[in-house]
This record gives sequence, structure tokens and C-alpha cells, in this order.
Amino acid sequence: MADRLIYLDNNATTKVDEKVLEEMLPYFSENYANPGGMYDFAGKVGRKIADAREAVKEFMGANDQKEIYFTGSGSEGANTAIRGVVNQGYGKKHIITTKVEHPCVLNTYKDLEKQGHKVTYLGVDADGNLNMKELEESIRPETALVSLMAANNETGIIFPYEKVAEIVKQKNPDTKVFVDAVQAAGKIKMDFKNTKVDFASISGHKFHAPKGIGALYVKAGTSFAPLITGGHQERGKRAGTENTASIIAIGKAAELAYDSLGEELTRVKKLRDKLERNILHNIFNARLNSSTGNRVPNTTNIGFEYIEGELILLYLNELGICASSGSACTSGSLDPSHVLRAMGVPFTALHGSIRLSLSRFTTEEEIDFACEKFPEVIKKINKLSPFQKELAELESIRSHQN
Amino acid sequence: MADRLIYLDNNATTKVDEKVLEEMLPYFSENYANPGGMYDFAGKVGRKIADAREAVKEFMGANDQKEIYFTGSGSEGANTAIRGVVNQGYGKKHIITTKVEHPCVLNTYKDLEKQGHKVTYLGVDADGNLNMKELEESIRPETALVSLMAANNETGIIFPYEKVAEIVKQKNPDTKVFVDAVQAAGKIKMDFKNTKVDFASISGHKFHAPKGIGALYVKAGTSFAPLITGGHQERGKRAGTENTASIIAIGKAAELAYDSLGEELTRVKKLRDKLERNILHNIFNARLNSSTGNRVPNTTNIGFEYIEGELILLYLNELGICASSGSACTSGSLDPSHVLRAMGVPFTALHGSIRLSLSRFTTEEEIDFACEKFPEVIKKINKLSPFQKELAELESIRSHQN
Repeated sequence: MADRLIYLDNNATTKVDEKVLEEMLPYFSENYANPGGMYDFAGKVGRKIADAREAVKEFMGANDQKEIYFTGSGSEGANTAIRGVVNQGYGKKHIITTKVEHPCVLNTYKDLEKQGHKVTYLGVDADGNLNMKELEESIRPETALVSLMAANNETGIIFPYEKVAEIVKQKNPDTKVFVDAVQAAGKIKMDFKNTKVDFASISGHKFHAPKGIGALYVKAGTSFAPLITGGHQERGKRAGTENTASIIAIGKAAELAYDSLGEELTRVKKLRDKLERNILHNIFNARLNSSTGNRVPNTTNIGFEYIEGELILLYLNELGICASSGSACTSGSLDPSHVLRAMGVPFTALHGSIRLSLSRFTTEEEIDFACEKFPEVIKKINKLSPFQKELAELESIRSHQN
Repeated sequence: MADRLIYLDNNATTKVDEKVLEEMLPYFSENYANPGGMYDFAGKVGRKIADAREAVKEFMGANDQKEIYFTGSGSEGANTAIRGVVNQGYGKKHIITTKVEHPCVLNTYKDLEKQGHKVTYLGVDADGNLNMKELEESIRPETALVSLMAANNETGIIFPYEKVAEIVKQKNPDTKVFVDAVQAAGKIKMDFKNTKVDFASISGHKFHAPKGIGALYVKAGTSFAPLITGGHQERGKRAGTENTASIIAIGKAAELAYDSLGEELTRVKKLRDKLERNILHNIFNARLNSSTGNRVPNTTNIGFEYIEGELILLYLNELGICASSGSACTSGSLDPSHVLRAMGVPFTALHGSIRLSLSRFTTEEEIDFACEKFPEVIKKINKLSPFQKELAELESIRSHQN
């Protein structure tokens, strides 16, 4: 194993910020009270939870603390919103989503289809963008929910969810809108109070809080059936003793991420662009899968034609570079990415596509090292490819283009 | 606020053991990988999760690691088991439970009743024990599930769940058995492989792991519908990025709790008995609500006749003593405990009942302090009671009994 660690898989998970860790630490073995207790020892934990809720409220751009519910993960948030709407029992059985959603959302719809719900999956174009006319035409009187991500975990492409919510409510004011904002949180500004979105979920570990804590925004006045019933916690909408240390952590992480949004859009974006530009320039069989348009600033997805992504990851691993070929939730599967397939990425690049995702802890030195090593790695792997003829042709075409 | 902290509310939550904290700490900001990653940095986290699963397997007395699923809380575990059985769609609509279950279970059944399920609530006698004949007669061909706790959170009374499972399977082998083992974990030995129990849930923060992590035992071959769908984590049965630090923590806490079971049954029990004996001996209007029979070793529930429990808690709080009047999940409510009502605790003691629960961190000095202060506190509160005549009569009767 390499001693070096160059972590370029921040869309899978992130390092807990030391400041976040410091903030949460006293709530394990010192201030360990259950906030439901009737004593001062509990009361002070309760007040810290209120502070954390306020920070997440600001981070998500909610109107009121009461619109923020803490959850155990992004997946739990998505399941709460989706099942919370469809289990209300209004009898509406139609749902609209997209082909490029995260597996936690797509698999939930597969499950609901088995239960008799009808799901429309909207496609995307080669740049990963939705067709707004197709969306509008899909909305029916019996559409219970429209569900889409704010930013794609594999490509970083941003969906215009504010506009989608406008279209939905105009066509059918009773249809609810759920935004999976897991990959947007900490990368682009969220301001849900000024949108018509009803539900939005985020996950702490994508923006330097620990794993196992998330939050769900629910616009005031929107009702939903709870996923986990039991105690009165989270205003009766999510039972279970409050995960105090992690709630305090997500509050601090939200505050830090909010303050770092400027850095994401400048320093992080500059590093991402440098890495992307270098790879595309120096490797003839590299092609950008992400749209060059509206993307989160930390993500790039690059296809290396005629070679295998798993092999690239293996070679990178030996250099201490962590990257991924798709979502961690599907890793281990050899199926090519459903996101890239939906975008029509050619077969020749599909199996050799990898995602590189940065964070505010990524340094210029790390990116320089990656820029230096990528061409060497790909050159070695190209030699192992069974498609030598195709690679030679491609090299010739590309060298003429330059 | 008192500088002193005498924490006698360990059934609400516990202090994270410093050894547990030490074990989990490196998994926040150092080894922060998502275990789904395709690199060594992730692999070593994956191996620690396997170790933790092994420790929980031993702790619960499971046959195989594959029978252990990590959850976000005891409530999530209960919801997963209960809804996982009833949502299988076998169409069986009858459930049997008890009147003294935890709110996370009872409220889930209230919810299922609204959806058309029929629930039989078994009563208990004055000692908190189930009537096995009543149980047996309640089992019908359409009984999908029998659900009971291993130990009661308010009184510590242990249900003979092994025997219950035997009776259930004999009467109807298709009926599933769920045991809420949250209050048993770390207090009495669990050995689910040698029972006919299908599901059992535990919660880490009740035995010195952090809040926000639990485990569900599911006997091999028992199928259930997942509560949270999405990624492939937990063998497809609980989506969401693994809560690595907390999983590692519950593994360590399970190991420590397993090793401390002897201490619970000797030192902790001795302290609980001392506290209980002193209070009952020195306070004329104190009466034991817990059965003197089969109880977990750390819990006592005592009713103080003709006075208010909330007032006792307030006075104890001023001395730095943390106790509770019932479950933290119902605190804030002024309704007397549903558990004590089911046991037929007289009205005169119902409102003045409090629970004291110890842990392996409780010291003899703390118990001595509590023994000294309790009579003073109750004497003061007795003076504020509107039932002076009744108190005087009771004092007279009790002094003649001694």
C-alpha cells in the first residue's frame, strides 16, 4: 500500500473536518445525556441540538428550524420523503423521476413499482440535461411526486430543480417535489425557501461531517407519513434517541461548508479544471463525460477509451490515489454506469470511465502529482488493452486534431 | 446547576466508554474512507467493520455474522423487523404484542392498526409478568408476528422470550417472533441462536456506544422487506453509506459489555439493591413498582405515594442526580406510565413513580450520596403534597408494620 494518500473520491465520502470533530467530541463521554431527560444535564444538550438545527436551516436556506428533520443518512432522507408522500394514502400512483438518479432513489422506485406505482423515468441528453418539455408533458392529475437530484454524483451536472418545481406546481399544484440534494450540499448554494420544492435531503458525510447523519428539509405545511415511528423525537416524524454528537457535527459542518462555498467555486474549481485540462490534453484516449456546462465545481468524469476503469483504479491505488468508477453504492458491480449510459456515452468509453472528486482539503501538490502520474498510468494500461488497432487509430486522429 | 453529576438514568442513555471512543476516533478524520471504495484506503475500513460485526454476533449469540445488520437506532431496528414482516405481503393481518412495550413499538402498532392490521395487546400481572396461557390462546392461523421486549425499560422486568418463541412456533410455525432487546443488551446474556426468535434489535447507546447506531439480529433464512432501500449496503437490507466510526464503536462496546456481564450481575446489582433497600427502608411512602422476581440488575422503579414524580426529578436535579419518570421518548408528557398502569400500580403511587438505572460506571460513593439525599428530598416534597391526611395515615400504618 502506498504511504501517500491523494483522496480524489470526495463524492463518495469526505474527511471529517478537525473543527467538526472537536465540536462533537464532548458529546460522547462528557455531555452524553439523552436530550429527552428532565434535568439540566440533558437541557444543555438539547440547546446544542437547536443550534445545529439553526445552522442546517441556514445552510439549506429554509425559512424555519421546524422545516429541518435530522435523519441517519441521505438514503433515509430520500426514503422518508418518497415513501412519506406515497404512503399518505391519497391514492395517487404516478411518480416522475430521472434515469440518472442515485441508486438509493432508483431502487426505491423499483420497489414502489412492485407495489403497483407507475414511474416515468425522464431521459437526459448527451450533456446530461433534462428535456423540460418532456417533463411538463409527463405531469398528470394523478402524479403524486416528481423527484430529481440537484447535482449528479457521477458527473456533477446540476439539474435546474428550481425551474422543475415551478413547472410541476404550475401544471399540478398537488404534486410534491423531492430534491436529492446530497451532492449539491457544500458545493453550490441552497436556498429552498425561495423555491417550490417540498422536500430536499442532504447527507453530512458528503461535506465533512461524519457518516450516519443527514437532514431532510420539508417545507412548512407539507405533510408526510413518517418512515420510523415510535418516540416523539423530531416532532414525531423520526423516532429514535437523537444522535447528539453527530447532530452537533452536521451543524458545525453546515456552518463551515456555508462559509467555504466561495472557496469551492474558486480554489477547488481551479484545481478540478487544472486536473481535467491536463488529463484531456496529455492523454489521447481521454474524453470528458461531464457536460462542460452547469456542473458542481469539484467533480469531473472522464472516459478512457478502449481500457477498463477497474484497472485504472487499481493502478491509481498503487500510487495512493483514490478515485472511483461510479457510486460507492454500486461498486463491485461490473455493469457500466447507468448515468453514463443514459447520456449516451459511447460503448468504447463506458467501461473506462472514472470519477475524480475534490474537496476543500485537496491541495495543489496533490493535483500536480495526479497530473504527472495519470498519463504514465494510462500509457501502461493502454498497452494491456486488446484494442491495440483501435487505440492506434484514435491516437492518429487525435494527433491530427491537435 | 449542581457541579456534581450522579447519573442514574442509564436506561435512557449511557456514557460512551472511553475505550470505545478511542477505538472509533481514527475513523473520522484519518481512516475516513467509504468502505465501498475500490482502494486499500477503503479496504482497511471494511475489515474493521467485519470485526465489529463479529463482536456484535458474539454479543447477541448469533450463529453467523450474516445474521447481524447494522441500523441507526433501536427504533429503526424495531420498525425494520415489524414492517419488514408485515410488508412482505403474505396478507396476514394479525399481530400480538404486550401493553408494556416501548413507545417505539407501540406507536408502530398504532400506525399499523390504521392500515388495517389487527393487534392483540397482552396484559401483565401486578409483578409485570405475562400470562402464557393468554399468549397461547391469542395465536391464530393469521398471526403474522408476535413482538415482545426482552426487558422492560421502566421496570427492568425480564420477559421469558425464549419460552414465548417456543410457544409461538409450536402453535403456528409461520408466525415470526420479534424481540426488542434494547434494554437487555449489556445487562443479561443474549443467546439468540439457541432460541426460536426470528428478529432481535439492540441500540448501542444503551451499553456505552454512541447514539445513532444499533443492530438487528435476523435468524438465517428469515426474509423481510427492507425499510430503507437504495444501495447494496448491509447485503441489500439497509441502504446508506456505512456509519463506519459508530459501527466500529458498537463492536468495541459489545465486546466490553460482553466481558462486563459478570460485573453487572454482581457489583452493579449490589449497588442497585443497596439503593433500593435504603429508599424503601427509610421513606415511609416509597413502594417498589418493579417485580422482586426476574429483573435486569441495574434498574429499579419506585413509587412515592401522594407526591408528584416531576417534582422529585426537579429536586434531584438540584443535587446533580439524574433520574427519570419513564421513557425519555415520552418525557414531557404528563400521562402516567402505560407500563405501571398495565401492572395495576395504584393511582396514589402512579404519578410519583421514578426510575433509577445504574451502569458499570456508577460508583459506591454515588449510591451512598443518593441513599443519604433521597429521604431528605422526599420529606421536603411530602410537605408540599395536598394529601397531608393520607400521608399521615400511611406513615402511621408503615411505622406499625416496622
